[in-house]
Amino acid sequence: MNDCIFCKIVAGEIPSKKVYEDEKVLAFYDLNPQAPVHVLVIPKKHVTSALDVNEDNASDVAAVFSAVPKIAESLGVAADGFRLITNTGRHACQSVKHMHFHLIGGVQLSENIL
Amino acid sequence: MNDCIFCKIVAGEIPSKKVYEDEKVLAFYDLNPQAPVHVLVIPKKHVTSALDVNEDNASDVAAVFSAVPKIAESLGVAADGFRLITNTGRHACQSVKHMHFHLIGGVQLSENIL
Repeated sequence: MNDCIFCKIVAGEIPSKKVYEDEKVLAFYDLNPQAPVHVLVIPKKHVTSALDVNEDNASDVAAVFSAVPKIAESLGVAADGFRLITNTGRHACQSVKHMHFHLIGGVQLSENIL
Repeated sequence: MNDCIFCKIVAGEIPSKKVYEDEKVLAFYDLNPQAPVHVLVIPKKHVTSALDVNEDNASDVAAVFSAVPKIAESLGVAADGFRLITNTGRHACQSVKHMHFHLIGGVQLSENIL
């Protein structure tokens, strides 16, 4: 995991603008926001993608979702809503190979989810 | 939950074209596909949205993610990748008020996730 940029962010070796942190989850602002609110929510444990979820790390993914209501509330997007997206592999343009959820909101999003 | 269309699909009261099923998870084809592969993956338990995740149902959401690798493999999108999306509330155009993940693939998707 030495070369994983998100593992380095978790370890504090690379700075990030944190939004939320608990034992298993970290959320921080995306450096290239596509919406007024654009945060990345990740399991601290290295999980490569949605294809890499298994018995050992499913609880880390669950922790991400348990944290989302608190994160959405703190960002002010709980009332109006938000979109969560995780990209896996080439067809989805997965950039960093550490599973991450884009939390997008603060604006009316399209019904078109492509 | 009587009026929830996805609870009725889980109960078999409304038909669906099933892709995958286990004790906690159901996946079925979206009726209005936006891509060559467009499946909905849901926890069988009624969870209204990502804002409704809590200690009681986090394991159901984890079960969704544990099932995703198997579902992606069976749909033939594991190698090239896919996008998972869940919409919460008005700004994200959440249609059915039962948490569901769009699994989209079979085509090169845009980097633009709005």
